Amino acid sequence: MTARPSNAHQARLLRLLRDGGPHSRAQLGDRVRLSRSKLGVEVDRLLETGLVVMDGLAASRGGRRSHTVRLSPQLRFLGVDIGATSVDVAVTNAELEVLGHLNEPVDVRQGPVAVFERVLAMVDALRDGGTAQGFDGAGIGVPGPVRFPEGVPVAPPIMPGWDGFPVREALGQELGCPVLVDNDVNLMALGEQQAGVARSARDFLCVKIGTGIGCGVVVGGEVHRGATGSAGDIGHIQVDPQGRRCACGNRGCLEAHFSGAALARDASAAAREGRSPELAGRLAASGELTAVDVAAAAAAGDEFALDLIREGGARTGQVIATLVSFFNPGLVVIGGGVTGLGHTLLASLRTQVYRRSLPLATGNLPIVLGELGQVAGVTGAARLISDHLFSVD
Amino acid sequence: MTARPSNAHQARLLRLLRDGGPHSRAQLGDRVRLSRSKLGVEVDRLLETGLVVMDGLAASRGGRRSHTVRLSPQLRFLGVDIGATSVDVAVTNAELEVLGHLNEPVDVRQGPVAVFERVLAMVDALRDGGTAQGFDGAGIGVPGPVRFPEGVPVAPPIMPGWDGFPVREALGQELGCPVLVDNDVNLMALGEQQAGVARSARDFLCVKIGTGIGCGVVVGGEVHRGATGSAGDIGHIQVDPQGRRCACGNRGCLEAHFSGAALARDASAAAREGRSPELAGRLAASGELTAVDVAAAAAAGDEFALDLIREGGARTGQVIATLVSFFNPGLVVIGGGVTGLGHTLLASLRTQVYRRSLPLATGNLPIVLGELGQVAGVTGAARLISDHLFSVD
Repeated sequence: MTARPSNAHQARLLRLLRDGGPHSRAQLGDRVRLSRSKLGVEVDRLLETGLVVMDGLAASRGGRRSHTVRLSPQLRFLGVDIGATSVDVAVTNAELEVLGHLNEPVDVRQGPVAVFERVLAMVDALRDGGTAQGFDGAGIGVPGPVRFPEGVPVAPPIMPGWDGFPVREALGQELGCPVLVDNDVNLMALGEQQAGVARSARDFLCVKIGTGIGCGVVVGGEVHRGATGSAGDIGHIQVDPQGRRCACGNRGCLEAHFSGAALARDASAAAREGRSPELAGRLAASGELTAVDVAAAAAAGDEFALDLIREGGARTGQVIATLVSFFNPGLVVIGGGVTGLGHTLLASLRTQVYRRSLPLATGNLPIVLGELGQVAGVTGAARLISDHLFSVD
Repeated sequence: MTARPSNAHQARLLRLLRDGGPHSRAQLGDRVRLSRSKLGVEVDRLLETGLVVMDGLAASRGGRRSHTVRLSPQLRFLGVDIGATSVDVAVTNAELEVLGHLNEPVDVRQGPVAVFERVLAMVDALRDGGTAQGFDGAGIGVPGPVRFPEGVPVAPPIMPGWDGFPVREALGQELGCPVLVDNDVNLMALGEQQAGVARSARDFLCVKIGTGIGCGVVVGGEVHRGATGSAGDIGHIQVDPQGRRCACGNRGCLEAHFSGAALARDASAAAREGRSPELAGRLAASGELTAVDVAAAAAAGDEFALDLIREGGARTGQVIATLVSFFNPGLVVIGGGVTGLGHTLLASLRTQVYRRSLPLATGNLPIVLGELGQVAGVTGAARLISDHLFSVD
């Protein structure tokens, strides 16, 4: 796709078709403030670019039945979500529906060259599966702060070897299409906004609890990235001045007390020290424990596992209470790997928020689990690049 | 003023003239994306409304010298900043320069009727002083959360009798002009952005430490008010789980440990218990201690007063560190009554933020005192209403 909208009306029409599917001209006319003739001109121009095509006949609104228009069924976006320990790759159509999706364990600490080799192999596999020949654009998420305009990770704590690596440029060359790079948490927020639980939300927080912990901040429908791209970096907020040492050098950081990594560590220690027969059995069976084991042990009624989740939920809730008082969001979404901990986590977290934040801020505040699971990030990645391509700048 | 801009170009031109003073047509043309003829049409229409007038001759740019245009020198905005214990009222011209300003001690707990009687008397005094006959619009700040569209305080903790009082409507009727109502902290942020230390900042926090403590949140140049208008309500963020009981019913709230009210209480206790000869002398002299006395005692080298300020700065810094990690602002402004505590406060606060927040968020983060002092709020109030009047909606 080389075509781009040539004015703001066209950009708006493209986004309407992306988010609402096929429309008749009359329906589009109801959504944009354009005279019928001006609308006709813009739609015709979009048809000429090939971004938009004629579709079936629309339902009659009294007069002659007209053709609907839709985004080209040829358009393909690529979404890549690089986590600390796994990678998701997906192909979407122009409406950002996932046509194909792969997930593989990949350790981000292998560095950008090795990781992108794997990513490109996954892309090839999806291409071979027939979902796409080429891509019109790609969005890439990485688990660390990103200088957004350049698409370059900046001092990402859990990504050795990635600092300053030109992800946007390098992948743009490999893929032969426009690329944007963002923090994985921002992409999860965009994904849930596009197709998940935050669909109509304009001001919300999306807390991702995975290997680490981070927060996507959406203000007025847009991701707030902050002055240096590190907004939402809540993993190192102090929850206990006398708490655990954190890798960052401080004491009592949220992430040191509750995250996928902290859960794995606590569960292993408990298993070895005989404090949880359930976890000990799982450790003996697999040689390693993760948050998934904690979730399973809790589901089996293991008290130690349940306590771990309750305590972690309380600590996270304490931080979210502060953010709710400060930011007064309309919705809080909890996502990431540990959402397998589900309603025990949510209950403990809600208790803290409703107890600690002022009633005015929590009176109408849903705190809910994300809906999209593993495709949240890749959906957000496709949304990110399509927002860029369907805009004028 | 009944005239309003009739399109977005006119609105933009009015704001340019407000913020940049008189412009020649050529200078305006450089600032807006309009053809010379279209610009001419819009400027002529604004001249017809009387919002804009011809001014002197502009410096030559080669051709014939042309007249500059400016906002009408007849325009007057009213800014009212109601604090917990005092009220500021000011009259500004169209460029938001303060032409007259009054400050009086008023206890907000007297309720809206009594307070507005005083406010209107102050307005009359300014009118009699000759700065204005009538007003084209007024902005009102109150020390509590506000349902912004309606201009109604909502459950404001330190404002008994104000809950649901129709401030916007009541004052609009009294003053005979459009009125907008907002939280006092948001107005301080707008004031510092308009004419103070945050002049070019787009994403910043403005922490007001007065009788209570609150935070104005500016995102992309706009005040972020949150889902229910309570964004920035940071006074009840917990800084110590075993801390002091707060009026809100929780324990260890920031405001219970550090604010004008907390300082006055701590200083009085120390004076009575013989822990500070300096404060004891001041209490004996005036019968009451405030944050001003703590500042004076600190300036005189009183160790107890210095410790109070250092400890309060550290607690506030602890909260700001969290907000900085989360929000990644480009600037933090400290304002309000206790800025008299000045550099001792700032030093202690900075230490916490730079120690606790990640380097990426603090690497380029100025933490500075506000510049406008008592006129920050009223300037912000005038800015608020002029933004509204110089817009299309």
